[in-house]
Amino acid sequence: MSGKGLNVAIAGATGAVGEEFISILQERKFPVADIRFLASERSEGKKLEFSGESIKVEVLKEDSFEGIELALFSAGGARSKQFAPAAVKSGAVVVDNSSTFRMEPEVPLVVPEVNAHAISGHKGIIANPNCSTIQMVVALKPLHDYSRIKRVIVSTYQSVSGTGKKAVHELESQVKNLMSMQEIECSVYPHQIAFNCLPHIDRFEDNGFTFEEIKMINETRKIMEDDDMAVTATTVRVPVFYAHSESVYIETEEKITADTARELLLNAPGVQVVDDPSKNEYPLAVEAAGKDEVFVGRIREDLFSSNALNLWVVSDNIRKGAALNAIQIAENLFETG
Amino acid sequence: MSGKGLNVAIAGATGAVGEEFISILQERKFPVADIRFLASERSEGKKLEFSGESIKVEVLKEDSFEGIELALFSAGGARSKQFAPAAVKSGAVVVDNSSTFRMEPEVPLVVPEVNAHAISGHKGIIANPNCSTIQMVVALKPLHDYSRIKRVIVSTYQSVSGTGKKAVHELESQVKNLMSMQEIECSVYPHQIAFNCLPHIDRFEDNGFTFEEIKMINETRKIMEDDDMAVTATTVRVPVFYAHSESVYIETEEKITADTARELLLNAPGVQVVDDPSKNEYPLAVEAAGKDEVFVGRIREDLFSSNALNLWVVSDNIRKGAALNAIQIAENLFETG
Repeated sequence: MSGKGLNVAIAGATGAVGEEFISILQERKFPVADIRFLASERSEGKKLEFSGESIKVEVLKEDSFEGIELALFSAGGARSKQFAPAAVKSGAVVVDNSSTFRMEPEVPLVVPEVNAHAISGHKGIIANPNCSTIQMVVALKPLHDYSRIKRVIVSTYQSVSGTGKKAVHELESQVKNLMSMQEIECSVYPHQIAFNCLPHIDRFEDNGFTFEEIKMINETRKIMEDDDMAVTATTVRVPVFYAHSESVYIETEEKITADTARELLLNAPGVQVVDDPSKNEYPLAVEAAGKDEVFVGRIREDLFSSNALNLWVVSDNIRKGAALNAIQIAENLFETG
Repeated sequence: MSGKGLNVAIAGATGAVGEEFISILQERKFPVADIRFLASERSEGKKLEFSGESIKVEVLKEDSFEGIELALFSAGGARSKQFAPAAVKSGAVVVDNSSTFRMEPEVPLVVPEVNAHAISGHKGIIANPNCSTIQMVVALKPLHDYSRIKRVIVSTYQSVSGTGKKAVHELESQVKNLMSMQEIECSVYPHQIAFNCLPHIDRFEDNGFTFEEIKMINETRKIMEDDDMAVTATTVRVPVFYAHSESVYIETEEKITADTARELLLNAPGVQVVDDPSKNEYPLAVEAAGKDEVFVGRIREDLFSSNALNLWVVSDNIRKGAALNAIQIAENLFETG
């Protein structure tokens, strides 16, 4: 890193995560020398603010990365596949938010609170995990370090912002139409999302799981570096705008009491414990939205198994679940922050 | 039962479940000779339709049950506790929708598809289980009969109608206010329910579980008549008006393949299988609302345990989860229907 900062490119700058990249880089005073905003042709010429300057959005192309040292990608899997190798070839390190490279053995899949050490092994691309995976592993790591987690059973309550801006608008417009007794349109989701729960995120696989569920299963095992960890997931879209909630059940090798779990989580990086039932305090999506932490509460011991805990884990899927985590990876990589 | 039908009283006739009692009795042509609508003083004098007749709501009192043969109660736990014994003393059989009597050993807790045989042992009161329990045990019974279910881990997505009419209005008004950038009021729930998930239904117990979770745990074990069944639950209120969804994970003694489970459920009473991912078909709250069945889909085998399945179970919490189940109990009791 030069004294005056890094040359940064954001691929997918006009998307929900792209916009969050831009605001988090500024919030965290990430050392930026020069910044380039890249997007599809649809957004060409659009202007975005950065540190008081108005910067034109350019079309994402293979030759977009000349002189770029850090490329933050959140432009969809197909674009990552096409353009990330070009960015690497140009000399940039890519932190990619898509699922394209996550399970490739030579690509580190990183949540800095969990496996920052994996960053150093990168060969140009570092993958940012799936939003629902990130918040879960941040909560599970301190428990896993205390006593190995043998099994994870998770059910998610995921907000529409995870799908992108169009989904936020679809929920908004469906709600407005339903409240005024008008017909609704479903174009982003195959079914009504307003006042409904869709047990369907990403495509279906042959084994009956959705790809979102497979991502949670595979990525958790890769990030936690434990091939013996059994994971199952049911991922569900709910009519919430921002922040994902998760009901997580874990089985551990040795007993972890609820009090010990609370203590471990209180001292864990990136975690905030919100767990006082007597005051109706537990993590909530509307309170996690816009925050950096992973919020954990409803910590309680299974009544029938001595080595199992239930947890409720909530975090902003666009921040810690995407943009923030990617920028934390970059901070680790360039030892800034 | 006399030839011309039964004398029926509905305690809590003006509530969400009470109104559903009234419409289901008519829909199913339940043999009613005479009907009495009972509620708190607030509703006194209000008129409700039944089979073309307009009937005045009377105040629920200890002497309200003279001549009554069947009393359907959904007036809250305190009123059940106070008035159900009076109804029994008057000679009525009470089907009670509150949690008051459910765990009393001499009170049958019944879901007709699961344990109709228990009805005959009643001593005047038969308890209707909790809404989230009913739909789950209807889905689990055929699997349990095939191979014993050793463990259940459930996370719920429960609609606001389960709390009552005031909660339906609270969600409506919060949504309206938020969409027009106005302040919201929280009076039914301790936190915003619109565009949020509340991992809190009913009061908290000392062990960190909510009473709703404890109800699911205890009632499932009682209805399934299996004291060795381990159950854990996380019950969550979501911004949905009608129908509860549930992510259910089960471990069985022997392997049940997804195909076998589907086959067993296809032939099970009260169940409708909706499970064709290739057509984006799975149970949905907005489609289950107003229907009688328990809808089951997303049936799939755990990738790491040979004896475990994931299911997605949806049903109308006011119908099968409350009024319909109670009336099915009454039909069994009087051999009607």
